[in-house]
Order: sequence, then structure tokens, then C-alpha cells
Amino acid sequence: MIRISIVGATGYTGAELIRWLLRHPETAIMHCTSSSSAGKKVSSIHTEFEGRLDLTLETFSADKIARDTELAFLCLPHAESARTAVQLLKKGVRLIDLSADFRLKNAAVYQKWYKVKHPAKAELGKFVYGLPEVYRREIQDSDRVANPGCYATASILGALPLVKNRLIKDGTLVIDAKSGVSGAGKKVEPRYLFCQTHENFLAYAVGAHRHTPEIEQELSFAARKKVDITFVPHLLPVNRGILATIYGTLNKKISTRELREIYLKQYGTEPFVAVLPEGEFPEIRSVQYTNHCHIGVYADPVKGKVIVISAIDNLGKGASSQAVQNMNLMFGLDEKTGLA
Amino acid sequence: MIRISIVGATGYTGAELIRWLLRHPETAIMHCTSSSSAGKKVSSIHTEFEGRLDLTLETFSADKIARDTELAFLCLPHAESARTAVQLLKKGVRLIDLSADFRLKNAAVYQKWYKVKHPAKAELGKFVYGLPEVYRREIQDSDRVANPGCYATASILGALPLVKNRLIKDGTLVIDAKSGVSGAGKKVEPRYLFCQTHENFLAYAVGAHRHTPEIEQELSFAARKKVDITFVPHLLPVNRGILATIYGTLNKKISTRELREIYLKQYGTEPFVAVLPEGEFPEIRSVQYTNHCHIGVYADPVKGKVIVISAIDNLGKGASSQAVQNMNLMFGLDEKTGLA
Amino acid sequence: MIRISIVGATGYTGAELIRWLLRHPETAIMHCTSSSSAGKKVSSIHTEFEGRLDLTLETFSADKIARDTELAFLCLPHAESARTAVQLLKKGVRLIDLSADFRLKNAAVYQKWYKVKHPAKAELGKFVYGLPEVYRREIQDSDRVANPGCYATASILGALPLVKNRLIKDGTLVIDAKSGVSGAGKKVEPRYLFCQTHENFLAYAVGAHRHTPEIEQELSFAARKKVDITFVPHLLPVNRGILATIYGTLNKKISTRELREIYLKQYGTEPFVAVLPEGEFPEIRSVQYTNHCHIGVYADPVKGKVIVISAIDNLGKGASSQAVQNMNLMFGLDEKTGLA
Amino acid sequence: MIRISIVGATGYTGAELIRWLLRHPETAIMHCTSSSSAGKKVSSIHTEFEGRLDLTLETFSADKIARDTELAFLCLPHAESARTAVQLLKKGVRLIDLSADFRLKNAAVYQKWYKVKHPAKAELGKFVYGLPEVYRREIQDSDRVANPGCYATASILGALPLVKNRLIKDGTLVIDAKSGVSGAGKKVEPRYLFCQTHENFLAYAVGAHRHTPEIEQELSFAARKKVDITFVPHLLPVNRGILATIYGTLNKKISTRELREIYLKQYGTEPFVAVLPEGEFPEIRSVQYTNHCHIGVYADPVKGKVIVISAIDNLGKGASSQAVQNMNLMFGLDEKTGLA
Repeated sequence: MIRISIVGATGYTGAELIRWLLRHPETAIMHCTSSSSAGKKVSSIHTEFEGRLDLTLETFSADKIARDTELAFLCLPHAESARTAVQLLKKGVRLIDLSADFRLKNAAVYQKWYKVKHPAKAELGKFVYGLPEVYRREIQDSDRVANPGCYATASILGALPLVKNRLIKDGTLVIDAKSGVSGAGKKVEPRYLFCQTHENFLAYAVGAHRHTPEIEQELSFAARKKVDITFVPHLLPVNRGILATIYGTLNKKISTRELREIYLKQYGTEPFVAVLPEGEFPEIRSVQYTNHCHIGVYADPVKGKVIVISAIDNLGKGASSQAVQNMNLMFGLDEKTGLA
Repeated sequence: MIRISIVGATGYTGAELIRWLLRHPETAIMHCTSSSSAGKKVSSIHTEFEGRLDLTLETFSADKIARDTELAFLCLPHAESARTAVQLLKKGVRLIDLSADFRLKNAAVYQKWYKVKHPAKAELGKFVYGLPEVYRREIQDSDRVANPGCYATASILGALPLVKNRLIKDGTLVIDAKSGVSGAGKKVEPRYLFCQTHENFLAYAVGAHRHTPEIEQELSFAARKKVDITFVPHLLPVNRGILATIYGTLNKKISTRELREIYLKQYGTEPFVAVLPEGEFPEIRSVQYTNHCHIGVYADPVKGKVIVISAIDNLGKGASSQAVQNMNLMFGLDEKTGLA
Repeated sequence: MIRISIVGATGYTGAELIRWLLRHPETAIMHCTSSSSAGKKVSSIHTEFEGRLDLTLETFSADKIARDTELAFLCLPHAESARTAVQLLKKGVRLIDLSADFRLKNAAVYQKWYKVKHPAKAELGKFVYGLPEVYRREIQDSDRVANPGCYATASILGALPLVKNRLIKDGTLVIDAKSGVSGAGKKVEPRYLFCQTHENFLAYAVGAHRHTPEIEQELSFAARKKVDITFVPHLLPVNRGILATIYGTLNKKISTRELREIYLKQYGTEPFVAVLPEGEFPEIRSVQYTNHCHIGVYADPVKGKVIVISAIDNLGKGASSQAVQNMNLMFGLDEKTGLA
Repeated sequence: MIRISIVGATGYTGAELIRWLLRHPETAIMHCTSSSSAGKKVSSIHTEFEGRLDLTLETFSADKIARDTELAFLCLPHAESARTAVQLLKKGVRLIDLSADFRLKNAAVYQKWYKVKHPAKAELGKFVYGLPEVYRREIQDSDRVANPGCYATASILGALPLVKNRLIKDGTLVIDAKSGVSGAGKKVEPRYLFCQTHENFLAYAVGAHRHTPEIEQELSFAARKKVDITFVPHLLPVNRGILATIYGTLNKKISTRELREIYLKQYGTEPFVAVLPEGEFPEIRSVQYTNHCHIGVYADPVKGKVIVISAIDNLGKGASSQAVQNMNLMFGLDEKTGLA
């Protein structure tokens, strides 16, 4: 049994982690912390656990967590997460951080996009980027993992074979991404009110979304050269799910069949990535409540264009179930344990 | 008073036309036809008109329509619409056709995309494409108008200043469009069931949507050269609204401010197109139930990219209220009558 | 032209009022006030008016409003509304108050349910309850109208013929009401977040909703004796619309047909209440964006039960368009002006 | 390992059964049948199983099912289900029938409500009504179980303590129930189209829903006398979930606390029924994707009224996960296996 703490358990990713862990045969949740709701039962905040989880929210204590648990999941706002991570690492707790704090390798880039000096610069290089399809081995050997962003997971999994295999022209990659509202976290702001979002649709952060540098960083690593993207996120009137429509201009004539072969070569043995049959494209409903990523590809050799569509659950493969997948790898379990 | 018939009044565009015309001070609805529901009251099909419209659906009769009305709106499936149009034109009825039959100028292109030989080839050149922002004068002089498609309206209004002013490189125009479910019409098919669509999102007709040639035709006219686009439509879990996110690679360095000036020059005096303030982008809720198109623009002179977002109501500016706007022009009324 | 001010124009009922008034041929909006957003354009808050309304939000000034306008609509929180009303009445401005402040005749009842001493007790008796189907004549003669609550409008219109005609046994009236989220106003609270409401449904204020005394007051007036109800409101995952399902135990054997006759006798000449054909029941989509109330009735003479279902748009007949209907009556216009 | 067949696997309850069984540690799905889609892969119909279930839909063969499986779940239309059941029972296959065919004990009542002569009258008495909270022991001993209807499960669990303990007056029980759209099954009919249902709400089958006699039968058994109910179902714009608001007139003065004690006495040890803390009421989101039923109670000793609210997932406790719970009981497994 892996004994676990969830630091910051009252948000959407916290609830989703609990949901997955309750089903996991090799874990026990020891502590759930909350700064605002300590003393309340978890099931009073997340009523879906009424009668299923008898645990009380506690204030954060690094000592208690270190004493009772092998692994902590951090579901905290950025900056606060890094400060907390430092405390727990000192005490030897292994970490999976679901915030953005350790995803970017470059502290200056972090500061530019997150408007705050990085609180634990020295740690930046030590965290592994927790995308198992790219860093499986590194995750297995690591005691600290930076769980990828939701947009980043969908975008990177979708675009990686294109840039890794140099299939598209530089500067032509466009990622038009659409996310369910839970992707924004449990923020009590006017724009996330039901009446502002339901029967509505909009683009936001046009030209300036924080996941852009994260996607560019990882695609650049894959391409072994700098990759620039045009990324526009949109707010879908659904609770959960991300669908990214990815466009590029081909370097050479290639058919949909050949393109699909390249994707199968990349992902054919992956337990959680499905390359759909030719002519089929993903829908978010098929991946909701799962750790799966569905990808559909299309190439037009006449127009010289490629279209790739990828879909995940932003709270699943885009956050909490991917964190469980990382945990499985870190602790030598079958990667699929509790996720099938 | 313009006496009006609606041919094919039981679908979504029919209902929306009635809604707009009931509010219009200069029109009287004389006949509403339906092949499947003749004999029933309009309000038994469209219950929102209970107590507001006392009219019975009739089988189509060209004679009756010609006798009693100056103008017929055709809300019929393609091909059937062209056959009906021919009958009514012979009898001197003026027409606004909401189907796709007279939008494309080329019968071969029509046949390729609609899988049927065009039933009234000789008429193709005589219809005016009913986009007032482009063909206002021609519409005023015409007795037959082809009302544009909903995706086409949003896409053309959004992209036209880019291609007309040669701002972007050939072959770089990407239109990622998202439509509410009513855009598909009242089709009783599994894919349009509530449980298949709600809390879902997907792309469809990837690489092959029928509005592509319509958009390319009109953008090519505007550019005075052949324009190729990459167009992917998506199905939004909302009743109504289209948002198109348009991407291109700039030909020259240009700022958002300069780009916006170009759009203002194009649309500044248009009653139904609003170019939003710098930094603002449209949402579909702001245009639902209106005849308005909202456009937001963004240029990144460093990356050399442009992003334009346009939004309309697919049943409003994308269909029925645009048809009313065309009617106003054809009959010499103030273009805004009944639409403000 | 009736010159109008809207006091508190940034909420949902304010936006809806503007929408209706823009279409009204006999009104001019002179002032829109807001304590929090003064100085901003109305269209920056309600983006649907971009390019349609060029008005700037102002801080409240009783003098200015009295100088420039005949009628003020108050769209303010309770208590604040009463205090504002007093100021405007002193200066001779006619009022339609959309808050709860002048609906209840009894100050003690008001204090019990709204947890605040009534700020203008002396005015309570002078306001007319603005339900035209009951108080048409009084509204015509009045300079101050208390616009009914949304739940109250749906419930009273649905239940009134039952109690007025003594059709049901005392103490058996159950009103199970369901409202769209806009009924709660534009409150930025966790429970109204999209992810808490979408794909969800719940009852609230069980045994203790503020509209209960308002409904009981008006049904008691109609019955000429005290009427007690059991009222449970529910939160529907829709933007707008209320549907009330009303149950009672019959006093005597009566058929659906006879029951419907009684409803027709009550409402047959009402322009905005439709009693549906036998066997048909209302849906909220049929009344959204209208001032109409749809009512369907069912009686089971064997079981001795009656079921009445009524539907309105909570922002329309439940608030702003009903306010316009009241305005038409107060100013001697055709009651349907701008509402058809 | 329990070897299982799912007869009629292409609908919503079929998909949901597969979802639950894939997670169940003691079952193996051997056959999935479909009359319309035989030959297709299950994952081509239910795309959420892409890469997770490699099984092909087959035409129904009683021989094959009897040869390879211990238990068959029937997810078929009524009447067809009974005919299929007879074939499988002859061959010794144990059955859980998710249709309505064996829920009612009285063939005449069945015929009245389902408009068809019962195809296997002789079997009616032999099936156990599969509500474990009432018939746990009988289910354990049985080889054939009639899985309850979704409305019936929510209504019976909510109302049973009221009638069993004679708390309410005869003829006063009102059940106002609201169901997500999947409760209607995967019917391709206009009323279940997205645009007819989204942003809408309505009552249906007023005075005549098929679950009424099922609820009355079971409540009468519990009360040991005939119980009549007034039952009105409504269609919620959500995919899944049922909430029933239950009203009654109290026989005697009782407080909410006392009422809650009675419910705790009934359900306190039930693994899948939670009686919520005083003052709390269920929401459907808390029970979606679970086998749980949440119940909140309220008594008003002054008015003499009781309000009980119960919520389940119509596809979970209302259908497929309840079927798994029944299977666990029939096969001597821990009742919670695969459901926690």
C-alpha cells in the first residue's frame, strides 16, 4: 500500500484524485489538506463521497505528511505549490505536483508567464515532466514529477509525431484548443458563472495563454530545434474534456494512411493513447472519466495540409488520472493499475 | 405590407423566420407550407407561437403563392429548393432561397459537393449571393437572392478584409469553426440526440465540408484571385451560435491596431457588423437572437501571425434574420426594419 | 415617448429590460445607473448591445432622473430598492420596482423572510401588485407598481383558478417549481458556477423560500380566505425559464375538460396567458424570450387529483417583460405594445 | 470468474453495464449481442471502449450463451425481453432482466400499461424484484431477477419508510420526478433531439407513466395495504440522473430529526443508500456514475407536511450498477464488489 497525502484537496483536481484513488487497489489516502476548509469532512465539500470516504480536511503539516505518507500530490495554486514542495522534499516525501511550478525548465520564462519570481529555482531541473509517453523511464527513476497541464497534454500528444518526424514546415503549427470549464479550476469569478458560460462559447487569452511556453518547450525537445506555435484556447460549455484541432503545412506529400502509420509507430504500444481508425475523429465524451487520449489524423497531400485532432479529459489524462499513472510508474506498479 | 409565403415552415429556419416576421412592421405572412404536416396549425409544430400566430400549414401550391404573395422564402432541402424556385419564378414571385442551391456559381462544383445534378443550372448566374455587406447594391436590384450558409457568413465576414487587402500569404488561411446544433437543421439522426451532443464536442466533415467551396468562391471574388482555405467545422453543445477562429500568416508586419483600422474601414458603417475594441473578442451569447456579427482581431507582428474571431447566430445572421435583411433591401425598406 | 431610467442596469433583469425597451416603439432610455460600474458603457457590461446602444452607466442621481424621465424601473437588491424608491417618489417619478420590497403587504412578514426591517413601511399599502391578469385596473390608475417575483408569477397564474373557484381541499396545494439559473440574479457564488450547475439538478430552500408568503398572500386574496401551500423550488441547468407543477386534491369530481373550461373562463381573453389544448403541457422553450405564460391542466376525477403545469420565462413574464406590460398599462398604451 | 453475456448491448444501459463490468474483478464478458449491429466491434458503437474492449457484437444465440456463460443481462425492449428470457431459462442461464417485463406481478396490469399481452405470464411470479434494500435475501437465492425501473428505484427508496411506517395519510403521496434524457433509452425521436431538450424542461406522460404501477405495487407491499400515488415525470436537460421530490401529509406531528431517525433505521447499514445530514438535500451530480442513492428529509410538524428528496443515477443505481449489485448477491460475492 502506498500511503498518500493530497495537499489542497477541495478543488476539482483534488476531488478527481480521490475518485481515482478510491478505486486503486494499492493506495491508502492518509491526509487531505485545505487551508480554507480544515476541520470539515471531505464529503461535506465533495458530496459525491458521502458514505464513501470518512476523512476530515486538515491544515497542512509537513511533519505529519512526512511521518505518515510516502507520496504527496500537490493540488495548489502556482507559487504556493513550489513553496510547499520544498518543505516536503526536505523531509523526503516523494512528490507529484499538479501545479504549473515545475513544468517549465527556465525560471525567466516562468516569471514572464506567471508574473511571479520562481520560489524554488534550484528545483526546476530536478523535476521530471510527467508525460509517460515521452518520459516513462525518467519518471520511473524519479521522486518528483511535474504533472503536465491539460492543454499541454492534449496538444503535445497530438503534435509530437509531426514535429519529431519533421513532417511540417516551421512556423505553420496552429493549435486551436477547446476546454471544458473545470479546466479553469474552481474559481468563483463572473466569467465562470453558469449563465455566462452555458449556451455560450468564446476564445480567451488570445495570443497569450500560459500553456503556450509549456507546449513549445516540449515540442522543441521532441523536434531537437525551436518550435513556435500559434495557440488559441476556447471555453466550451461542458464540465470536462479538451479537444485540440491541430493544423500544419506538410513538408512533403503524405497520405492519411501514411500519417496514421507514423502515429501508430509512436503510440501503438501505449496503453492510454488510441490512434483512431482512418476517417474517424475523437469526441470528448469518449474520453471523459478516463485516462485515455484519442487521436484522429488527416492529411491532404494535394493542399499539403495536415489536420490532427486529439481529445482527453482535462481532469483525467489532463490532470488527476495522469498523476496516478505517474505514481504507478514511480512506485514500480503496473502502469495501468487502477486506471483500466 | 409585403405579403409573404414561407415554403417549408416546419424546420428551425422556418420558425426563426416567423419569429422575425411577426415583429416586422411591414410584412404579413400569408402562407406557410409543409409537405409532411399540412393541415396542422403552425403553433402545434412551433409551440412558441401558441396564441401568437393563427395559421395552418398548407401543401405547396405555386398558384396560391403567386396569387397571394410578393415574396417567398424557401426553407427546403437542397435540390428540392431549386425545383420549387423554378416554379415560383415562372409565376413572377420574388424569392429568397435559404438552401444551398443557388450559392455556388459553378454547377460542376455544386454536383461534386451535393452529390446531385443541379436541377436549375440556367438560374445559377441570376441569383445574387445575399451577403449585404458585399452585394448590397445587387440585392437591391434583384428579384432572387441566394441566402448564404451560416458557416459561410461567419467565415467570409471574418476573413474578407484579410484576403481583399492581401494581408496574408497564399495557402495559410485556416478557419476553425464551431456551430450550435441547430445549424444541422431538424434532422432526426442519432448524432443529434441530446445524449450524443450534450457534454460533448467533436469535429466533423474533416477535410470535406460543403461550405468550403462557398467560402472559397466568395473569398476568391474578394481577393480577385483563387483563395484556398483549410476549414474544419465542429459541433458545439449549444442550440445556436457560430464562432469562427481564423488564422493566417501575415505578408508584412502589422499591429493589432492597424489590423483593426482595416476592419473598421471595411465594416465601420455596417449596421450589423461590430468590430470589437482592441483586446476584446466575441462570444456567441452576445449575438444570439440577433442579426449581428461581432469580430475581434489580433495581429502578432513578431510571429507574423493574424487571428480573427467572428461570431454570429447561425439561425439569425447565418440564416433567417439575414434573409429579412435581404428582403428589406429588395423591397426598398430601411435595411434595419424589424431587425433592431 | 416615455422617457425612462433603469436604476441598477448591470444585472440580468436590467439587460432584459433594455432588450425589450430597444424594441418598444414608445420609449426612450435616458439613464442607466450602476453603483459599481458607473463610467463604463452599457455595452461593455452587456456585450449584446455592442453597436446597438450607446449609453454610459451613471451613478444614481434622483435629481437627474426626476428631471429627465417619467418612469424609473428599479432593478436593485431588496431594501436598497425601497430606500431608492422613496427618494424618487418624492420627486414625482413613477416607479416599477422589480425587487421584492413592495410585494408583501405586511411589514412583519417582510422582515421575517428578508431579515431586515422594511425601510419604507408607509409605502407598502400604496404599491399595486403588478400582475395584470389580476390587478389590471389598479395598475392603470397607479404611479407605483411592485413587479411580482418570477416563481410567484408562474405559481399564482397556475393556481389561481383552483383556489378562486374553491376546487381543491384546504392544505393540499403543492407547488413543485423549477427555475433556470438567471432567476437567482447575477450572484458570484460557488453554487452558481457552471461546473456546480451544469449536468446537475437540486432542490433548495426546502420549506423556506421567500416567494412562499408572496404566493400565499395573492392566492389568499383570490380565495377570500387563508391559503397555505407547500412550495419547493429547484435549480434547473438552463439559463432561463420556470416551470411549476401544481398538485391539489379535488373538492368534487371534475374532468380535465371541465377544468380547462374554468381556466379558459379565467384567461380566455388574456393576451399573454395561453391555456393549452387538452392533453398538452407547457415546455419552457416555448415561452423563453417572451412575455407569455403557458398553462396545461389535468384532472383525474377517479383519484380526485388535479395537476396544473405553468411555464414562463423568469426574465420575461417573470420580470422584465411583465414590467413593460405594467408600464404600458400605467401609461395608457395598448398593453401589448412592444411585447408581441 | 463469472462468465457473462449482455443481450442487447448497443443501448445506454448496455454501455453502462460494460463500463461497470470492465472494472469488476470477478467477471468476464463473453458475448455482447445486437440484432442491428452484429459484426461490428463494440468499440465502434461505444467509442469510449476504443482500445479498452476488443469484442465483436454477435447475433443472439441461446445455445452459444448457454454454452459459454453463467449469467445473461437482458437489455432489450419490453416483450422482446420476456421472449428471450424464456429461451435462456430453458437452457439454465441465470438472468438479470433490465426491461420492464418481470417487474409487475399482475399480467393484466402489465397489458394495460405496456399495450401488449405478456409473452411469458407463467414466469411473472418467479422473478425477484431486484431492489436489494428490500429483497436482499430473495435475490441471493434466485436465478432470475427483474431489475427495477429507474424512476421506481428513486421513488421507492425515497417513499418506502413513509408508507411502511404509516407516517402519511392515504392518498396524499405526490412524487414529482425529474430524469436525465438517457432514462428514455437511445430512441431516435424528435423529442430527444438536442435542440428540443437543451435549455428546455417539461413534464410528460402526465397522469399516465408506466412506472406508476411499479411504484404502487412495491409501496403497497411495504405498507401491507393499497397505496395510491400521484406521479409526474419530467425531462431534465442532463444526460443522467434522477431526482424525485416526494410530498405527503403527515398522520401525526413529527420533526425532521425524528423523521431522519426513521430513515436511518431503515437505511443505516445499507452500503449504497446515504441519508444526508439534517438540512442537506441531494443533488444529482453527487450520485452520477455511482451506485449510490442520496436521500434528504424534511418534516414540518406545524403544516403537517413531509418532503423527501431522493437522487440516483438513472443508468447506475437506476439500471446497470444495480444490476451488478444484484449479480454480486446472486453469486455470493461481497455486494460491493466492483461498485465502490
